[in-house]
Amino acid sequence: VALLVCSVYSVDLNEFLAQRERLLAEESSRILGGSVILNADEQLVNNVLMAAKTLEFDQSFSTLDFIPADHYFLAKPAMLQSEVFQFIQQMPKGAVLHIHDIAVTPLEFIINDASYRPNLYVCTPPQDPVFFQYASSAPANLLDCQWTLVADKREQEGPEQFDSWLRSKLSLFTLTPQETYPNINSVWTAFENTLIAGSGIITYAPVFTDYFYQGLQSFYDDNVQYIEIRTTLPQVYNLDGTLMDEVQVTQLYKDTFDRFKNDNPDFSGAKIIFAPLRRADSATMTKYVELASQLKAQFPDVVAGFDLVGQEDLGPPLKDFLSQLLAGAVDPDLHYFFHAGETNWHGTDMDENLIDAILLNTTRIGHGYAIAKHPSVMDLARSNGVPVEVCPISNQVLSLVADLRNHPAAMLFTNGFPLVISSDDPASWEAVALSSDFYMAFMGLAGKKADLRTLKQLAINSIMFSAMSTDEKNAAMAEWQKRWNSFILNKYNEYKTKHNQI
Amino acid sequence: VALLVCSVYSVDLNEFLAQRERLLAEESSRILGGSVILNADEQLVNNVLMAAKTLEFDQSFSTLDFIPADHYFLAKPAMLQSEVFQFIQQMPKGAVLHIHDIAVTPLEFIINDASYRPNLYVCTPPQDPVFFQYASSAPANLLDCQWTLVADKREQEGPEQFDSWLRSKLSLFTLTPQETYPNINSVWTAFENTLIAGSGIITYAPVFTDYFYQGLQSFYDDNVQYIEIRTTLPQVYNLDGTLMDEVQVTQLYKDTFDRFKNDNPDFSGAKIIFAPLRRADSATMTKYVELASQLKAQFPDVVAGFDLVGQEDLGPPLKDFLSQLLAGAVDPDLHYFFHAGETNWHGTDMDENLIDAILLNTTRIGHGYAIAKHPSVMDLARSNGVPVEVCPISNQVLSLVADLRNHPAAMLFTNGFPLVISSDDPASWEAVALSSDFYMAFMGLAGKKADLRTLKQLAINSIMFSAMSTDEKNAAMAEWQKRWNSFILNKYNEYKTKHNQI
Ligand SMILES: [Zn+2]
Ligand SMILES: [Zn+2]
Repeated sequence: VALLVCSVYSVDLNEFLAQRERLLAEESSRILGGSVILNADEQLVNNVLMAAKTLEFDQSFSTLDFIPADHYFLAKPAMLQSEVFQFIQQMPKGAVLHIHDIAVTPLEFIINDASYRPNLYVCTPPQDPVFFQYASSAPANLLDCQWTLVADKREQEGPEQFDSWLRSKLSLFTLTPQETYPNINSVWTAFENTLIAGSGIITYAPVFTDYFYQGLQSFYDDNVQYIEIRTTLPQVYNLDGTLMDEVQVTQLYKDTFDRFKNDNPDFSGAKIIFAPLRRADSATMTKYVELASQLKAQFPDVVAGFDLVGQEDLGPPLKDFLSQLLAGAVDPDLHYFFHAGETNWHGTDMDENLIDAILLNTTRIGHGYAIAKHPSVMDLARSNGVPVEVCPISNQVLSLVADLRNHPAAMLFTNGFPLVISSDDPASWEAVALSSDFYMAFMGLAGKKADLRTLKQLAINSIMFSAMSTDEKNAAMAEWQKRWNSFILNKYNEYKTKHNQI
Repeated sequence: VALLVCSVYSVDLNEFLAQRERLLAEESSRILGGSVILNADEQLVNNVLMAAKTLEFDQSFSTLDFIPADHYFLAKPAMLQSEVFQFIQQMPKGAVLHIHDIAVTPLEFIINDASYRPNLYVCTPPQDPVFFQYASSAPANLLDCQWTLVADKREQEGPEQFDSWLRSKLSLFTLTPQETYPNINSVWTAFENTLIAGSGIITYAPVFTDYFYQGLQSFYDDNVQYIEIRTTLPQVYNLDGTLMDEVQVTQLYKDTFDRFKNDNPDFSGAKIIFAPLRRADSATMTKYVELASQLKAQFPDVVAGFDLVGQEDLGPPLKDFLSQLLAGAVDPDLHYFFHAGETNWHGTDMDENLIDAILLNTTRIGHGYAIAKHPSVMDLARSNGVPVEVCPISNQVLSLVADLRNHPAAMLFTNGFPLVISSDDPASWEAVALSSDFYMAFMGLAGKKADLRTLKQLAINSIMFSAMSTDEKNAAMAEWQKRWNSFILNKYNEYKTKHNQI
């Protein structure tokens, strides 16, 4: 009888274990991709993937060398060796929706191709940034530096040394990131200096189109089929110094996208988001928004919408431009894609950009790093289907978070929040197109148990949350599904071959 | 007409600003303390507090020296100068519910008092930890060190140098935390070495009771009125080497608590949570749980319940002891207070301690650092009223997070999740009782706009979520309300005096 009485209070171990399984299953179903059903082939491929992922986690757990916990600059060589990374590289990842014009293309194009073209001058002031310009003769000297032909400087210094110096001016890469960039402002200053240096080369008309062609190529090679590029629509120049305006530059984008798609019919396309600098006065902002509407009308298939760029912490915040942005919202065709909440601050004008972005009916939220601290914004974003564009490596390199396991998007993943993974400025930190960020998200944010369902959902999300039209989305999804099936089949056969040999 | 058509699509600026206010107000009401209504005096005090907080935020924003973003060891001097910190020190904070026996009392007691008592021997092996023991004559030598009288060593080296050496063996403090503790295991090893060093002094019977008396005093002086101490119930020894068992040690706690309460009638009391090391075999765990039940029956007012301690990452996880812990759950009086999810790992046995803790009906969750990644555990904890014991400085010093703005509890704050703030092992990192952690939570986790309502709710939570009986809670709340009213009145008068003088 005593035992019987006890058992009234006790919970049976088997019953407990069943409860435990139910709770784990519930969490597994809530994760991003939790409702994806894998077919038999996918399940086998998933097993292969998860074996590699589990092994990598377990090794990291004992060595404490966990790639997403280290700074990307130090962890990259190990990442390149990772089986999980290689799997992700091969996987059709859909679209990349958050990248910026000046950092879309690997530096190799600028260093090995563009900078070897004739007529390129460089001007090196005592302090960064350095300036580049193509010209038929040396441009007028700037205050504190003289223009030299790159060809001369390269010959003088030796090509190897010069090219490595050039790389250092275009990239944030260093083996001592903490010492080199002690705080968020210093890394942003250095970052903007690399963009300024690059822009002199990139905005030369013949380079411009090749540069973006190569940018598309690098993502295409990384198994990405569609791209949206945020661009300031910089003035593109010709050798004689004449400048192209925003309409002409948009036309250049369109021509380049068309040329690439013509060469690669299975590429789903590219669009631009006009994203000028947020540091502007009211009159300028009015012009920006009007221009965005005008460009959208003139290039409806090329222009996705409007955004503002520049270190968010330094402002001004969106709320300073409400009149202008509300005026722009009158145009039903003009969509917003605001950077918002790319900050560690909390309860400030900076993170409250999230409030304005969501109320301004933004189509997506760039970064949204601070969104986890804004539950009402999260509720609205989820119910309105507004995804966050998560760029893990960018957030780490630009000093928001050291160990990616502390990235707030981990919580978004486990809550099945609408999100896409993107790479922001891959060239600036020498990331591998989209795969580096996918890897960090899969290993560092989504947790050890996130599997092929999560990766598949990320790819699907990237197409569904893109600015493509319904027709374009349907075509892109069909193309993606074809690639996915072939990827699964290849992986399946790879496994079977290996398995039969053993 | 064109204008009219346009205005169909547009949102009026005033309407937008009203929406904006509503959304901000909604978020303000969702924050921890969002439903607290401040009376007129509290509102004035809140204004004073928020002026100081806003100033500190704004200065930090421009200097980038934000105290919760720096390592505590480097930021402490600035924190001590902060007006917000001083306000928090003076504020009646209620209870501290998560601290550990060996690190509850400021090191000054050990260094300036206990270590000067006669008969203390020290043994210093080539590698830490060092060992201390009180004995009537030198204890038997350990393998690689010889026992020396502390008094002799102190005289030989000079008291200043010896005492500073002694401090270095008891504290993790260093001005180069990143270099000294390159990873989580190295800081945990050093941490455990300080605990081992301290325990030889603390577990000497006459010191033991004085040590805990001084521990209570330090929290009492910090305007904390109630304490729950996790203790391994170590064997306490007498000078002749005889040892006390767990019942006798519990009696020592009770005597000390009674003595302190007798000396300070407005102190609400203290309890212990029996929390032995998790690294145990099944048989030992069975004994632990049985002992916990027995002690709870024998000392119902002193023993709050049961927990397990030790670096969670190194295991074993709770699920290894389900039979034992389910057996313990048969005792309706034995409550669990499990450490769970004190880890950066995600999807592993370690963070899944959260699953087992909540299913084992834990009364509170120690740390719960990983809970934001477990939405179903969050749902259960919220609906069952199970709070998380958040210890921000501990999580930073023990290498889970560098910048406290990335601490996941920021999200718990803005979601009004049940939580309390505690200090874990304040002596080990030389924190100021509870105020340091309260300050970090208020500044670093709760956001710039969190105000007196949040602080008040934290104090109320700490009493409501304690292990006190209903009667004890009512008495403690009444005492706290009295202290609170007097605190508000003092602050109010302070302001009025200053204001009238100007
Ligand atoms: Zn961006
Ligand atoms: Zn603890």
